[in-house]
Amino acid sequence: MKIIKGFPATSQAYQLNVTNILRHGARNFGRQEIVSRKYDGTIFRYTYRDAYTRVKRLASSLSSLEISVGDKIGVLAWNNYRHFELYYGLPGTGAVMLLLNLRLAPQELSYVINHAEAKFIFFDEDLLKVAESIAPLCRTVKGYFIISDKPLRDIKTSLKPVYSYEEIIKEANPDFEWPNIAETSAYSACYTSGTTGKPKGVYYSHRDVYLQAMMYTANASISINDCLLQIVPMFHVLGWGSPYAATLVGAKLVFPGRYHLNDLGELIELLAQEKVTVSNGAPAILMPMLEHIRKMDPKPDLSNTRFISGASEPPIAMMKGFRNLTGAEIVHSYGSTEAHAIVTLNRVTPALEEELSEEERWDLKRKQGYIVVGLDVKIVDEFGNEVPHDGKSAGEILIRGPWVSGSYYNTPGSEVQFTEDGYFKSGDVGTIDPEGFLKITDRLKDLIKSGGEWISSVDMENAIISHPSVLEAAVVGCPHPKWEERPLALVVLRDEFKTKVSKDTIRTHLLEKFAKWQLPDEILFVDTILKTSVGKIDKKAIRVEYKDIYVSE
Amino acid sequence: MKIIKGFPATSQAYQLNVTNILRHGARNFGRQEIVSRKYDGTIFRYTYRDAYTRVKRLASSLSSLEISVGDKIGVLAWNNYRHFELYYGLPGTGAVMLLLNLRLAPQELSYVINHAEAKFIFFDEDLLKVAESIAPLCRTVKGYFIISDKPLRDIKTSLKPVYSYEEIIKEANPDFEWPNIAETSAYSACYTSGTTGKPKGVYYSHRDVYLQAMMYTANASISINDCLLQIVPMFHVLGWGSPYAATLVGAKLVFPGRYHLNDLGELIELLAQEKVTVSNGAPAILMPMLEHIRKMDPKPDLSNTRFISGASEPPIAMMKGFRNLTGAEIVHSYGSTEAHAIVTLNRVTPALEEELSEEERWDLKRKQGYIVVGLDVKIVDEFGNEVPHDGKSAGEILIRGPWVSGSYYNTPGSEVQFTEDGYFKSGDVGTIDPEGFLKITDRLKDLIKSGGEWISSVDMENAIISHPSVLEAAVVGCPHPKWEERPLALVVLRDEFKTKVSKDTIRTHLLEKFAKWQLPDEILFVDTILKTSVGKIDKKAIRVEYKDIYVSE
Repeated sequence: MKIIKGFPATSQAYQLNVTNILRHGARNFGRQEIVSRKYDGTIFRYTYRDAYTRVKRLASSLSSLEISVGDKIGVLAWNNYRHFELYYGLPGTGAVMLLLNLRLAPQELSYVINHAEAKFIFFDEDLLKVAESIAPLCRTVKGYFIISDKPLRDIKTSLKPVYSYEEIIKEANPDFEWPNIAETSAYSACYTSGTTGKPKGVYYSHRDVYLQAMMYTANASISINDCLLQIVPMFHVLGWGSPYAATLVGAKLVFPGRYHLNDLGELIELLAQEKVTVSNGAPAILMPMLEHIRKMDPKPDLSNTRFISGASEPPIAMMKGFRNLTGAEIVHSYGSTEAHAIVTLNRVTPALEEELSEEERWDLKRKQGYIVVGLDVKIVDEFGNEVPHDGKSAGEILIRGPWVSGSYYNTPGSEVQFTEDGYFKSGDVGTIDPEGFLKITDRLKDLIKSGGEWISSVDMENAIISHPSVLEAAVVGCPHPKWEERPLALVVLRDEFKTKVSKDTIRTHLLEKFAKWQLPDEILFVDTILKTSVGKIDKKAIRVEYKDIYVSE
Repeated sequence: MKIIKGFPATSQAYQLNVTNILRHGARNFGRQEIVSRKYDGTIFRYTYRDAYTRVKRLASSLSSLEISVGDKIGVLAWNNYRHFELYYGLPGTGAVMLLLNLRLAPQELSYVINHAEAKFIFFDEDLLKVAESIAPLCRTVKGYFIISDKPLRDIKTSLKPVYSYEEIIKEANPDFEWPNIAETSAYSACYTSGTTGKPKGVYYSHRDVYLQAMMYTANASISINDCLLQIVPMFHVLGWGSPYAATLVGAKLVFPGRYHLNDLGELIELLAQEKVTVSNGAPAILMPMLEHIRKMDPKPDLSNTRFISGASEPPIAMMKGFRNLTGAEIVHSYGSTEAHAIVTLNRVTPALEEELSEEERWDLKRKQGYIVVGLDVKIVDEFGNEVPHDGKSAGEILIRGPWVSGSYYNTPGSEVQFTEDGYFKSGDVGTIDPEGFLKITDRLKDLIKSGGEWISSVDMENAIISHPSVLEAAVVGCPHPKWEERPLALVVLRDEFKTKVSKDTIRTHLLEKFAKWQLPDEILFVDTILKTSVGKIDKKAIRVEYKDIYVSE
């Protein structure tokens, strides 16, 4: 898009620098609390003012080491207060914070580190094995920082040279003059999970992060009276921007540290104990959390809590379960690494609140929501033409806006993911209804093509999950000699229904929403469904595993 | 400040363009209501979607006239829905909207218009006389647009050429492709009220307005569930940014049209009838509003309403009056034309909420509040050195930030109002306490210098106003042969106390907070106090009027 210069304004040339969010936050909300669960389960508490003092020490120690403007620094850490300090301290010096997904295999992790040419790696002590496993593969790393309460001499490691996060902070000068980093400079790099091809790097600018934080705070109505529990891993799209949003308005922050999907009691305890009002997550964690709550007596009172839920459509049963058992509200949101976490938020507008029946409102809440002010979104057909906003016409979702990526870092050939007029091609397929609500119907590459017709794998999964016996489901298209592709469904039943539900029950249930020809040729009951490192169903792997299921027939 | 470039990010070069706020607002919140009181008292209602359609028509009609990128266009209007349309339609085409204070004298108004070289003027029909009075003085204006329900032929005027706002909209093409205006381009120009010297022009960029809107929404927690009544004139610092904040999140908007200080019943009726939750104003209007409410039976229920109150310190009696009689909350805020309206907001932080007694909380609420995240504020002594944030050390308030002006347009010599490191020198004197709360103690030029000591005129006014018999008060320093200056107090008593209160009562009351030597030498009971065009006490004029009061003694 050609930019047209108008009459000059008299504005200051002040940079949107992320470090200012904490610098001002500490000034305004100095005594607001930050709570963090440690490795050993004990709770650490300090304040925004304390955090800022340590962040300044961190920054001055980095400057006295060999870290300078433009260096890329990897971070491999759980959600804890030191990770939060790195969020502000590292980029504040002009370095680029490289988010490392601790669930990636060593080959993938080292690919990301080498591609970014990271100079140092910070990691949590209990990720020492991960750090040691990647070290021989990393070509540019000059040293490692262990984040731990223990003195360095008590930690055995083959890494060299190795520094202690706490020791460098302790020895550092508490006065630090922040450099005035240009807002267009990279603040952080996040690599896509790479379900297709190699991971690709999105380098967020300070401006991107700052704007997204303001927009998110305004749209999700986060205020000084909120308490935010950061469940979404902080290495996913900057923890969806929540830590910045909270700091911007001085909300109390709670970090759960490392938590386990098979023991969510700790998380639920934190929610109740710290009086959490806002949290974030995905059905992949909210579903097992609800399962845990079902078994609790008494149930936790979460009537003041709202969960921003992303990654995939929240099943109505899950939303109702939370509401009925705990009082909590689920707010669906949609985003991506390239477009930042919050592209849409599902807040029922007053007109719809009034007009819709209760069941219609639940149905509406499954949609991804309205596109936040600031972002342009287009839905286009295979020829690139915009389709109408009628809630029916589907097409690929294209996204443009002030905090959206316009390219991938140093990835020849990736330009095809962006249009000439500046939109990011999300690869997601969806509709927009006349009220402006976006609904994702599928990933472009997950649509199933059967006899020249399309079947949405996501719609079918959601329909299967809506059966009360089902915990999880995955639907993929598998090669078929006659129809090109035919759907296959993998289904995980809830414990109490195992062996009690037949394929025909699922088929009959699906007939309420699907034509007979669309039903999966095969339904397999399985114990688990393969996930990617970011917790999404790994359809690529499932398609590989079952590629012959209809061919060999 | 030197800007340091870091590693390049992969962001899009997307511009923060104010028109997008309405464009996206109409998409997301199309059916949310905009309510506007017309000249004749009838209520006009339409929606964001309707407003956006008219804004597009307006923009396409402007382009087909001779209005092009960079042109300055004056607007002389009350708070109504067409003024709101101009907020988006004019600058959307790349023109600069020149805010015209309809209370200025023709000489001042035409000075502003000539300085900005405005090409056209839009004005409300009932301001025809004002427009006609300035027309002969305006050197660059090529035409006038009358905003009225009447056809042009029914309006008698000497202005030439003259167009009808409604007719150009009616005839215009409803499809309009917005130009992609650079975010650093001027969106609007606002001239300072010029209590010293000629008015000076602040030219806000699109970026300034966009950022301020996001920040304001986040800090004041304005959401889709709010209903905002725009009391602050829209020609004052863009109505303090509220119309943008509301549009950003789809809050219902209410415009009161023209209202009169001596008949505030209409405003109070709107507040109750439209279920207003947020409004804005200053003690100059809130005090008479409260007086009106005192006489009402039953009292209006405003328990869901908060008023953002600026311009001067809200008296505790006023805040308590609103709380006790209506349930409404007063939130103090501070700003200026140069620094945008919202520099601080007084929201009691949770720690203080817990620790302070009720009376201490009321006292805290008189302060200007904490400085919103994003802005740097320094308090400096006469040598430019920062003073401690102890709540006692006072100095001039310097402001720097992403939406603050860095100069005045085409005003040689005005550079002295900005420091070398980019701060705007506000001319206000204040303190910051350890909790980060700013308190204004005076305007630099209104401080009274008596025998080498300083007396705060604002502190003394607030002390006088805290007496239950007092409606308004002004304190100025007048030349004195021995002490250089001595304070003079002008006091307006509330109706029921007139002639019943003596100077000694006021003096005794002041002794609770002031030393004897600080007391005004003279206290005059008056019927009204001179105000400037923006409703502030006109101390310059008062000082001129009473310049001999102590000299002739």
